[in-house]
Amino acid sequence: MLRTRPAAASDAPLITSHRRRMFVDAGRRDDQVLKIMAEAHEPWVAKAIAEGRYLGWLTEDDGQVVAGAGLLLLDWPPHPLDPRSTMRGYLLNVYVEPSHRRRKLASNLIDTALAEARRRGIRVVALHSTDEGRALYEASGFRTTNEMFYVEPIES
Amino acid sequence: MLRTRPAAASDAPLITSHRRRMFVDAGRRDDQVLKIMAEAHEPWVAKAIAEGRYLGWLTEDDGQVVAGAGLLLLDWPPHPLDPRSTMRGYLLNVYVEPSHRRRKLASNLIDTALAEARRRGIRVVALHSTDEGRALYEASGFRTTNEMFYVEPIES
Repeated sequence: MLRTRPAAASDAPLITSHRRRMFVDAGRRDDQVLKIMAEAHEPWVAKAIAEGRYLGWLTEDDGQVVAGAGLLLLDWPPHPLDPRSTMRGYLLNVYVEPSHRRRKLASNLIDTALAEARRRGIRVVALHSTDEGRALYEASGFRTTNEMFYVEPIES
Repeated sequence: MLRTRPAAASDAPLITSHRRRMFVDAGRRDDQVLKIMAEAHEPWVAKAIAEGRYLGWLTEDDGQVVAGAGLLLLDWPPHPLDPRSTMRGYLLNVYVEPSHRRRKLASNLIDTALAEARRRGIRVVALHSTDEGRALYEASGFRTTNEMFYVEPIES
């Protein structure tokens, strides 16, 4: 029996494990970096949920969490795509347990997040996708953007 | 005589005019949308500067502002690219008056913003580039990302 519920601040360790395994699935293999990230993410996400800036959803199968996703509410400059708004949504921490893949759990969580953004009058929702995830997001109406990153090299 | 100074909240109308003309240069021709955006952006940027979340720089030529850029400090989940940080930078409102183009004013403002991000321990700085801007940002070390957007269609 599948059921989706909102995430609470007390779900921070679980959401953090989703985030870590999501990056492992995406091919990141540096355990030390993932460990540092997880230690910093857990208090960050607990605080963001408590403050209402991170909206999370968790899907349970007979009471066991098997999938999750989050929507971060970003303070954002009004943009021609959403000229009245000072908010942008950011979809993150989308993860489905291997045992429960190919059952549309991710799609349903994405739809839930997009519906919540719409309810709040947010017209633009961004995310970063792996190559494997792209088709899923395209099916939900996402398209690629013109974003660029500068990433500071690590000092040797 | 060129001089670059930090932006103050009182520069909000000027920064907003940069933003509007930046989008016109990028090919956006819907005046009504740009007007709505500008009206919402001006108080947004004034508040963000006052709160220290928007860092702006303006380049003056004999006291007249001829170029500008901003760095928005985003609350961001720790990520493998920057595993200890809960901040990401976002470069925006990069604009140079037509009379002063091809004199490296944009490059210098970008370098200033990246140096400030570095000083604050922020390793990732994002932006959205026009096709025309891409070479400039690549020269400063930016590369394209895997970002995707969902944009809510306007009701007819």
